[in-house]
Amino acid sequence: MPKSQYLSLLAGAFFSLTIHSLSAQSRPRELGVPFGILPTGPLNAITDVQGVQVGHLTKIEGSDIRTGVTAILPHGGNLFQDKVPAAIFVGNGFGKLAGVTQVQELGNLESPIILTNTLSVAAGIEGVVRYSLAQPGNESIQSVNAVVGETNDGYLNDIRGMHISSEEVIQAIEAANPGMVEEGNVGAGTGTVCFGWKGGIGTASRKLPESLGGYTVGVLVQTNFGGNLQISGVPVGEKLEKYPFKDALEKSDGSCMIVVATDAPVLERNLERMAQRAMMGLAKTGGIASNGSGDYVIAFSTSKGLRIPYSIPSQELQKAEFLGNDAMTPLFLAVIEATEEAIVNSLFAAETMTGKDGRKVEALPRGKVLEWIKNQHIGN
Amino acid sequence: MPKSQYLSLLAGAFFSLTIHSLSAQSRPRELGVPFGILPTGPLNAITDVQGVQVGHLTKIEGSDIRTGVTAILPHGGNLFQDKVPAAIFVGNGFGKLAGVTQVQELGNLESPIILTNTLSVAAGIEGVVRYSLAQPGNESIQSVNAVVGETNDGYLNDIRGMHISSEEVIQAIEAANPGMVEEGNVGAGTGTVCFGWKGGIGTASRKLPESLGGYTVGVLVQTNFGGNLQISGVPVGEKLEKYPFKDALEKSDGSCMIVVATDAPVLERNLERMAQRAMMGLAKTGGIASNGSGDYVIAFSTSKGLRIPYSIPSQELQKAEFLGNDAMTPLFLAVIEATEEAIVNSLFAAETMTGKDGRKVEALPRGKVLEWIKNQHIGN
Amino acid sequence: MPKSQYLSLLAGAFFSLTIHSLSAQSRPRELGVPFGILPTGPLNAITDVQGVQVGHLTKIEGSDIRTGVTAILPHGGNLFQDKVPAAIFVGNGFGKLAGVTQVQELGNLESPIILTNTLSVAAGIEGVVRYSLAQPGNESIQSVNAVVGETNDGYLNDIRGMHISSEEVIQAIEAANPGMVEEGNVGAGTGTVCFGWKGGIGTASRKLPESLGGYTVGVLVQTNFGGNLQISGVPVGEKLEKYPFKDALEKSDGSCMIVVATDAPVLERNLERMAQRAMMGLAKTGGIASNGSGDYVIAFSTSKGLRIPYSIPSQELQKAEFLGNDAMTPLFLAVIEATEEAIVNSLFAAETMTGKDGRKVEALPRGKVLEWIKNQHIGN
Amino acid sequence: MPKSQYLSLLAGAFFSLTIHSLSAQSRPRELGVPFGILPTGPLNAITDVQGVQVGHLTKIEGSDIRTGVTAILPHGGNLFQDKVPAAIFVGNGFGKLAGVTQVQELGNLESPIILTNTLSVAAGIEGVVRYSLAQPGNESIQSVNAVVGETNDGYLNDIRGMHISSEEVIQAIEAANPGMVEEGNVGAGTGTVCFGWKGGIGTASRKLPESLGGYTVGVLVQTNFGGNLQISGVPVGEKLEKYPFKDALEKSDGSCMIVVATDAPVLERNLERMAQRAMMGLAKTGGIASNGSGDYVIAFSTSKGLRIPYSIPSQELQKAEFLGNDAMTPLFLAVIEATEEAIVNSLFAAETMTGKDGRKVEALPRGKVLEWIKNQHIGN
Repeated sequence: MPKSQYLSLLAGAFFSLTIHSLSAQSRPRELGVPFGILPTGPLNAITDVQGVQVGHLTKIEGSDIRTGVTAILPHGGNLFQDKVPAAIFVGNGFGKLAGVTQVQELGNLESPIILTNTLSVAAGIEGVVRYSLAQPGNESIQSVNAVVGETNDGYLNDIRGMHISSEEVIQAIEAANPGMVEEGNVGAGTGTVCFGWKGGIGTASRKLPESLGGYTVGVLVQTNFGGNLQISGVPVGEKLEKYPFKDALEKSDGSCMIVVATDAPVLERNLERMAQRAMMGLAKTGGIASNGSGDYVIAFSTSKGLRIPYSIPSQELQKAEFLGNDAMTPLFLAVIEATEEAIVNSLFAAETMTGKDGRKVEALPRGKVLEWIKNQHIGN
Repeated sequence: MPKSQYLSLLAGAFFSLTIHSLSAQSRPRELGVPFGILPTGPLNAITDVQGVQVGHLTKIEGSDIRTGVTAILPHGGNLFQDKVPAAIFVGNGFGKLAGVTQVQELGNLESPIILTNTLSVAAGIEGVVRYSLAQPGNESIQSVNAVVGETNDGYLNDIRGMHISSEEVIQAIEAANPGMVEEGNVGAGTGTVCFGWKGGIGTASRKLPESLGGYTVGVLVQTNFGGNLQISGVPVGEKLEKYPFKDALEKSDGSCMIVVATDAPVLERNLERMAQRAMMGLAKTGGIASNGSGDYVIAFSTSKGLRIPYSIPSQELQKAEFLGNDAMTPLFLAVIEATEEAIVNSLFAAETMTGKDGRKVEALPRGKVLEWIKNQHIGN
Repeated sequence: MPKSQYLSLLAGAFFSLTIHSLSAQSRPRELGVPFGILPTGPLNAITDVQGVQVGHLTKIEGSDIRTGVTAILPHGGNLFQDKVPAAIFVGNGFGKLAGVTQVQELGNLESPIILTNTLSVAAGIEGVVRYSLAQPGNESIQSVNAVVGETNDGYLNDIRGMHISSEEVIQAIEAANPGMVEEGNVGAGTGTVCFGWKGGIGTASRKLPESLGGYTVGVLVQTNFGGNLQISGVPVGEKLEKYPFKDALEKSDGSCMIVVATDAPVLERNLERMAQRAMMGLAKTGGIASNGSGDYVIAFSTSKGLRIPYSIPSQELQKAEFLGNDAMTPLFLAVIEATEEAIVNSLFAAETMTGKDGRKVEALPRGKVLEWIKNQHIGN
Repeated sequence: MPKSQYLSLLAGAFFSLTIHSLSAQSRPRELGVPFGILPTGPLNAITDVQGVQVGHLTKIEGSDIRTGVTAILPHGGNLFQDKVPAAIFVGNGFGKLAGVTQVQELGNLESPIILTNTLSVAAGIEGVVRYSLAQPGNESIQSVNAVVGETNDGYLNDIRGMHISSEEVIQAIEAANPGMVEEGNVGAGTGTVCFGWKGGIGTASRKLPESLGGYTVGVLVQTNFGGNLQISGVPVGEKLEKYPFKDALEKSDGSCMIVVATDAPVLERNLERMAQRAMMGLAKTGGIASNGSGDYVIAFSTSKGLRIPYSIPSQELQKAEFLGNDAMTPLFLAVIEATEEAIVNSLFAAETMTGKDGRKVEALPRGKVLEWIKNQHIGN
């Protein structure tokens, strides 16, 4: 992006602290925050990957319930009958993600991915199982691998109340759609805290140039972790004096769930490598994968040629066309960039929230942050 | 099988040692079947490991419900407040074991281990979470890592009915006690099938000589897998013409859950190595870890010096005395022997069962098997 | 052992099939020892897998040098330019196997597999690198991943003398051929000890029925480990009173290198699962993967459709046809059976050897063992 | 770069703290580049960890040889007799690091760590083995696990010439000392390229406040990788127009070896977690762990209470005091910060080099970079 373009958009009242139209809808990129070198997809969202659908169930009730469910579907069909190649990378295993070993052993995903709070993983699994058993075509299946991730929203949410039901999980699945993804205090991000500020759901995407395959990579995050916040290179945590071992609320702990989707024809081993790179995007925001942070990355490919049908004779050969190792580097870069941006997006979208026991978590002071970023770029 | 039949075939000198009453309670070792070189503990059960408790909830209702829950507690106190070192080895990850990554990341176990059927893992997690939240002393905890394993009992059980509730899971936990462990068609083994015969719960133990530390190793298995059955070296599967790709019922698939307990002071890395050896015991029975078999081993140490208290200042040093790598070989052998015997015990204890859709799974023809084993030893 | 002794004990109908001359070349199967249910390939060797070549360099010099090199080539062409899918499973990582992480990360093998002694891994790597750099077509390559395994032959061999040179490693590679594989005290097995008896190189194969794909699986082992020896189900270790913690020479420690080849079109993830099953075959011989035993399995597929050419544009799609998860069970069984048999073959082929410091390791008393096996089967 | 140029751009208040002489020895921190929130140790080097020693062997000969060896010793004694707890994390396994599985299986390190070029790993292993066999006290050992890492310096170095000998490896070990560590074009960093600029050896350290334990973490890197360079948050790669898929020289490929040392009493499982965080520090410099980048982290603790003596009776209990999981977060942060700084240090220290085939790799234009960093901070 030419400097002049930056300068013009950074010139106005725009940065004078929560200016006129600094609505929640304004995403950092639109506000001029630069993130890497690759272009985004049209929505700058995980749903830029053809076929991917996202559904939220947000539960804000009374003074103490601040939680929800987010469902990510690799495609809108019957996932059990038409599995997709998938992998999971464990960034830090202090979490309760269900379904890990089957994905790792078989290299595929056979159900919607569910994100929710730590103590609602059981509801998540039950929801996925009941949903899958009930799907037309699944009348005789006796086994479903539910992949259910979580972060702990217990600072703002009465997590011990276990307020998510399996029915609500199914509602989130059924709400899934392929359009723009709502960010911030929605779904599984309703009650989360990130770098001591209000976290939530964020998403972003990258589209490779045609010379590198033209593939799309989309990322969705549930941000509930900590560290020394850095946005577009600016040491925001230090400037705001909210960083590890400094600020009481910045506990660093928490967790981050990351979902990576791509339409690139990538098999499970290279999907795992892509998943591993998502932690590098998290690192660029200043995340430190603290002891208590359960950080996981689930990656899948929607490439139609790589679907794994459930009902084929076991001896039949699978025919596939897929990318080799040498083609992976651009996809790695795309994952890193989209993950960094998705996390920052979650922070910009999340609004101040008051919850359990009257606790309040402030939204990131976007105005100040934007000003610093503006100054850095003008300075340069 | 009539008792007289057993008695006649057991007349030989070889069995003179132990045979008196040939009830279902007669375990293979008592019937003269040899298993390795190390002696057992007094009960030849996982509960020989001081402090370990086991509880079953068996659910046989109507013609179609044949399932249950088995709970294994490393100690009778508050496991969340007083965690034990633990590890998990994935023999074949085609299963739904919950709680894997936290055990692997943190090296400890903080709740009862639950075994049940594949589609009741959610109930297992919910039961463990509710049980843990309600335990005195846990009033403020907001996170529990539930370790819930399963095998698929859908051949005999109406598994799609999801007949296990979280309350029943808690009942199994509360039924846990440190005495003899019931084997066969009980708890999580109620509806399982093993090598084409009725499987179930089995247990065994080994006690090392004092010169090798005098430690006890106990194993409990939920057997629902297949392969080419071999008992005490005799190719039982071939003799009974029920082996892979030969007999329709011997589908080899299924799963095996294995729990290994020891009072030896072993930290998590070496517990993982012990867990890995359990698969070698399974191999000695002819198990092949077929594609569809979700085979997992959970190992923990009850050594009091290695407990990990929840409420200590984070900077305080843990003091521990533990065995080094060089001391592990006898414990590896103990795991292998006890696992092999526990699996065979499950087959000898399980009785013929009729279940869903009128399907019937026969008990292993113990008389024939004992005769072959007797002949082998007389022959030699 | 006099030939007459063998002949007398082999008089029974049981052995009538194949026995004619009782030389050291007589392999257990030919002598009537049964191993599982699947048929072997024509040579009952890893070279039954089309294209696989094996070469030995045996070094017996003076009183103290008892060592060697064994090279296994997936095909006779340029492996760097024409890589094969591959995987490595670590049964017990107390060993020095080089090249592990690249095989695991990239899923392929690009050089001959070398087996030798523990302190000659450097020579092995140097040999593979020099061989690869010098191959026509490799004039510009600057990186080679050498996969070099080892076991410790230091009981009979002056291992500290580091008597293997990189030139000898190249000689072993160049000696590779696709015919029958010599077993026993040859190549990397020259100085090894197994279950307290003389170990060495062993090999075996299985060919699946056409209904299960008709694929061949071949295994080669370098046996230098211990445990409680069991052959075809007979507790040979106990009968010979040479088992862990009983006999001074049966130290259980040592290591076992296992190489698994198949012509089945299997990608790396499922090759890793096949590799893992080889440890189950080892378990059936009574191996216990003791603390000091470095046990590794390297598996590869020779399927021509799965070759990975080095020189293709990185964005080009790989086209492949391969077996899915559901097709793997027969291949798992084949690996288990062939590994068990290959280990026993190594014990039957190895002759008594005297080496360093006048130490002597006896060959397995084959006559006694065969008699026990015969009796077991007649007994039944 | 003329000293005057630096001085002029460093005139601002921001850099007034530390700037005195602007020699090549001036490290980024001294020049005012900020790196995180934790203080460094006295040398800002891995040797701040008590006992750690580093030795370089630099080989620059003729026009084509540009390579070397770097040795890192956890302590100055006999490492085989007095092992240290250790772990290895594989950031991207496209590399030849030797010794991985034994460190992972046994949790310890028993020899000096060697870094060199890709085709000299064999020389590295042979050097370590010969060095270890010859050490007083090791007269009877028959096994040594050599940990030898590498990056590919083949752009500037005649790597196919295999110019490192085992004797030179021993020289590097013998040159090891506990003082300041030379950075840049030395040892294993002599011929490396990083982000398209001249890379090399870098080091840094962090010292935790006493309230967090007061422990020291030191990092040493061999930088030969690529990505989208970012220094102290400034997008240097983009500003210099040398980033992935843009600049021909910035191939992103290559590798990074990272060694993490600490005096904190941390056992192997938590050392592995520390190692994993080093990749997050690498990510903050813009590294992307491209397909061809073999990125590995080796971590060890020098805590005297955690030494593992070779010669103890195997049944004897190890007594240890160590940090629990909850104490790890500050150490994670220290690893991330020190790794980021060590990488940047390598870039600032490395001078322009001409090598094989007349190829030239420029040093990072430090003046420009410092100016940008100054402006960013003044801007804010």
